[in-house]
Formats: sequence, structure tokens, C-alpha cells
Amino acid sequence: MPKNDLPAVQAAYKLDAGEGARYAFGSHLATRIATAAELGQPASGTILTGGKGARFPVHRHAATHEALFVLEGVVALELAGRSYLLTPSDYVNIPPGTPHGYEFVDHRGKLLCWTFGGNAADAYTRLGKPYAGTVYGESNDAIDWNALDSSVDSELVATESKPGWSHKLTVAPQGMHPFVLAASEGERMIASDQVYTILGNQTHSNGVFIALLTEGPIGAAIPKHRHEKVTELFHCLNGQMEMFIGDGFLTLAPGDFLLVPPKTAHSFRLKKHDTRFLGFITPGHFESFFRYLCDPFDGYRYPLVPPPFRFDRVMQHISDLDLTILERPGGPPSQVANVEQ
Amino acid sequence: MPKNDLPAVQAAYKLDAGEGARYAFGSHLATRIATAAELGQPASGTILTGGKGARFPVHRHAATHEALFVLEGVVALELAGRSYLLTPSDYVNIPPGTPHGYEFVDHRGKLLCWTFGGNAADAYTRLGKPYAGTVYGESNDAIDWNALDSSVDSELVATESKPGWSHKLTVAPQGMHPFVLAASEGERMIASDQVYTILGNQTHSNGVFIALLTEGPIGAAIPKHRHEKVTELFHCLNGQMEMFIGDGFLTLAPGDFLLVPPKTAHSFRLKKHDTRFLGFITPGHFESFFRYLCDPFDGYRYPLVPPPFRFDRVMQHISDLDLTILERPGGPPSQVANVEQ
Repeated sequence: MPKNDLPAVQAAYKLDAGEGARYAFGSHLATRIATAAELGQPASGTILTGGKGARFPVHRHAATHEALFVLEGVVALELAGRSYLLTPSDYVNIPPGTPHGYEFVDHRGKLLCWTFGGNAADAYTRLGKPYAGTVYGESNDAIDWNALDSSVDSELVATESKPGWSHKLTVAPQGMHPFVLAASEGERMIASDQVYTILGNQTHSNGVFIALLTEGPIGAAIPKHRHEKVTELFHCLNGQMEMFIGDGFLTLAPGDFLLVPPKTAHSFRLKKHDTRFLGFITPGHFESFFRYLCDPFDGYRYPLVPPPFRFDRVMQHISDLDLTILERPGGPPSQVANVEQ
Repeated sequence: MPKNDLPAVQAAYKLDAGEGARYAFGSHLATRIATAAELGQPASGTILTGGKGARFPVHRHAATHEALFVLEGVVALELAGRSYLLTPSDYVNIPPGTPHGYEFVDHRGKLLCWTFGGNAADAYTRLGKPYAGTVYGESNDAIDWNALDSSVDSELVATESKPGWSHKLTVAPQGMHPFVLAASEGERMIASDQVYTILGNQTHSNGVFIALLTEGPIGAAIPKHRHEKVTELFHCLNGQMEMFIGDGFLTLAPGDFLLVPPKTAHSFRLKKHDTRFLGFITPGHFESFFRYLCDPFDGYRYPLVPPPFRFDRVMQHISDLDLTILERPGGPPSQVANVEQ
């Protein structure tokens, strides 16, 4: 059976693609993959799908900061008075107060939505009914938008957007601004054979979270480690990851989700060619780890010949970081990066 | 090590995502996954990726029929004097003689290309050099298009395309016409809890091949069976499939490819929610199997409550089909379709 529930405690858990607490409204299916109970803060993760033409009208959140990442399909977005045609891997930053809404343009639209600092994601529970299916139902039932009363941090607003598609950015502005970053764009960095792309940095959410992509070839595991206050939210997009978590191993395939709460030992290893995952990390100050580890990178894909792995720089700054290393830092060592067994 | 080769005989084989015979030209990476040697006919399968702006100029094939399916990213296509903005799951039919070319619009473009009836896919071998990497190299090296001499069925042609993006179709015309079918559109049919979408039917290639999508929930295996002349080419797109092939089982994950030659026992089972695969089947007359098995379907996604499984209709017409059933047809039975263990 699909599980259709969440653990409701702040503990490590994995959800297979499609699992979570599913709510249907119209032809929308909102699958909640983490809520305040699992995150230990007013935050939530949701997968949104829907039929062609399914839409969430323009609304704004007073306190909730939202981030969207396009997993599949084509989505029309209204954001702060402009329209954007979103395609897979586009990223959207939506600070509190920003009017935004979307419509699925094809039959395959799938959005990942993370919200922090407010209860806006409770809108899906209010609008929807629990649903046993694992893909959206093709319903023409009307949606009762009045269910979004003042107890939910989502207020519908009447706006007009500038006609035509606005240009998606290749470089995000610093600070708490709404923006749409085009697929694979953003600040890119490299650590040995893995390329990191920062989609949302600390300044974009005033330190609440960061969002970053990691891609690489089959490689060695990163050293097992633990954070005291940092929560990591892993979404496997391509390929396959072997995760060490707590005291054992599990596998993430595309669409799978893993929550790693504070004080939990973990590491990962990329197990297939061109493996790619998206991580949300909260709070955002852990960004400095990646800046110590990585070198700036102009490319977009992991290179044939990787640069040296500079974990030594992390160790020089270990006292600044919420990071306890639990084994000898050995990977991903450059000498095996091209072996790909 | 990445394998970087093909079996060169007409036998069953699986390739993990990224495997195949890889050729680099400019920032293009062409990964050949099947050639005439494996297919027993002048045909070929190739995965094409490349950096933003990488392009294959407009060309035509005298004898080769080509079909494209967008696996990832956004691709600008020129086809018969029109321009199209392709997004994932779009399908393109390119009969011999049709001018066509493409350009990758973002950094994630990935096209699946099948060619039948000519050696056009040898262009990748001529243009490229063998490449050890598993993603495209970000090279600015010029491409020697003169390598496409008359021994390859690809002739560059000078054309002008109508400005603006042309409309993608929701219904494909009958016959050997060039067309672009929008994502998830096409003729849809249902067999119990599995939805089949015909992208390319027999008329589109004069009987040479068909292309169809299959999607469904976790379910039972279809009965093991064998064809005498039909070759099936499986591409797992979402979720996971368990394949029986020859005398054992293997697993297909997204991006994996399986060639099932004639006279080889096989079956499949969908193992994850929302599993989806694309099949090319040659020759195309096996289309009638799906018409016996399925009922017409107006929806786009597998429904919560499936209709009855009508394998009885297949059995009534078994003498018309290149199909030998090797076990009792029992699946996917509707009584377990919603169990999804």
C-alpha cells in the first residue's frame, strides 16, 4: 500500500517517489513529504502535480518564504507581476509578500515546493482531501478557494502580469528578492569530480535555508559526518545515491526523498553515471562549508579530468562549521574519480 | 569503467544509463545504444546531449526515417521549414527527405533518436571521436561537418524557417508526414491499470516501427511471451521495471535501455509508483496487439479505479499476432492493481 502518512517526529526517514501525505483538489495532487512536525520548525516540503490547465491562482504569504524547483513538465508562473515559462530544473525564490501563482502547461507538470517560516503549506490540507492514488486524478471538481481562511498564511490577491514571457536569470541577485533562475544556472563550484550549483544562497532567505544541486560520476563516499543544528533534505533527481544514515545504508533513486535531522551521522556516494541531487539545507549558514571545500567553476557538467579534492581547506576551518567528521576524510579521491567500476 | 562499446551481435542486452559507444564532437556527446549489428537491420538508437547552444544544422536523410523523443531539457527544432520549442516528452516524426536540425536551449538537453532504413546515425561516428566521459565535454572545438560525405545518409541543406514557435500537435496526422506531438498527447488506450500512448503508429513510418509510452502503478507482471520477428526496444523513463529476459530477471531504472531481439522470452513488471517507459517496436504491425488488448482512453494518467483487463481479446486474435504466450495470462489483474505493496 502507498504509505500516505509521515512520521510526525523529528527523525531520519526516506520516502520513495510518490509517497507522502497526498491531498487532491480539482486535478491537483499535493504530496506533503515533510511538515513542521518532522522539521522541528514552521516549514514544509510538498510535491505538486496536476493536469494540463490546473492552476493555483495568484496569492502571497505574509511570513512564509517559498522556493520552487521544476521536477518535470512545463509550468506557467506569475511572479511579482511578470510571467515565466518554467521548464525542468528552473528554480524560483519567493520571499514573503511576493504575489505568485502557477498553471500546469502540459500533462507532466511536477513542482517541488519548500516553505519556511510560516504555515502556507497547510493550504494543501485545507483545499484537498486525502487521496489513495499515486498520480493526480483527472477531476473537473471545482476547488473551494474560500477554504484558505486567515488561519493559513496564503492570501489570494488580484494582480495583472506584464504580457509575454519574461527572461529567466543566469545569475541570481543577492538579497531577499523574488527571482527565476534558469535550469543549471547559478553560482557553480567544483570539489574534485562533483559540481555544486547554488540555486538559493543565504542572502536569498536571510539565512533561513540554502538550495543547491550536486552532480557527479560514480565515485567514492564522502566522509561520514554529523551536524548539531543543520537539517539536510535530499532529493535524488538522476542516477542513484547510496546514503549512509544513522547506522545503515539505503539507496535513493530519482524521485526519492531523505530527511536527515540534526545529530544524525550520514554520508553519500554517487552510484551511477551523471547522478544529480538537489539539497535544501537549513539553517543556511552551512553554505560556508561548500565555499571552503570548492573552487569556483565556469562549466556546467562534471569534467573528464577533475581538480584536486581540497578537504584540507574544510579541516582548516572546521571550528567555524557545524560539522563533526566521523571518519578519515578520504573521498571522493581524485585517483579513483575516473575508475567508475 | 564505462563500457563504451556494444555487443555487435543480435542478442538481448541491457545498457545502464550513460553506457553505450560514446562519440564527442564540439560539446555534443552522441551515445550509440544500438546499431545495425545489434538490430539486424539498417537502424540505430542514439542518445544525444550537448551544451547550451550546441546544434546540429539542418539536414535531411534520403532513406533514413528518424524519430526523436525529448528525454530532458529544452531543444529548439527546425522541421520542414517550421520552428518548435521542444520540452520533455515531446515526440518528433521525421520521414525521409524532411529537412530538420536542432539546437540545445539549456544545459540539460537530452534527445533519444531512433533511425530506421538507412545509415544516418553513422554521422555521429564520422563527426565524433570516442570519448571516455559519461557527460558531454564543454568543448569549443569546431566541428568538421565536411566529414558527412556521401557515404552517410545525412545531407546538410540550406533552409529558412518560418519565424516564431509553431504549435505542437495533440493529435498526429495519419501517414508519412513530419510532425511534432506535444508531451503526453497522442492516441491513448488503457489495459487495466496501464495507460498506453501511441506516439508513432504504423502509418507514420509505413509499417517500419511504432513508438509508444506505457505508464502505470506498481502491478503484476505481464505474461512471459516471445515474438518470432518483432524486436522491442525498452527505455525506462520513470520509476522502476523488473524485466524477465531469456532466463532471468533484471531491473531497469530511469535512463536504462534493454534490447529484446526476436525469439527471446520476456515480460515486464512495474515496480514503483508512476513507472513510465517508452518502447520502440519494429516492425510496426505489432500495433494490432495493443488495439486488441486496450480500450480507448480519454485520460492522460492511470486512473484510481482501473477497467477490466481484456487479455481475452488478445487470445481471440492470437493467430493474427506474432506472439507466443509462455505462461498463463494472469496479469496485471485488476484485483491487485490498487494493492501496490
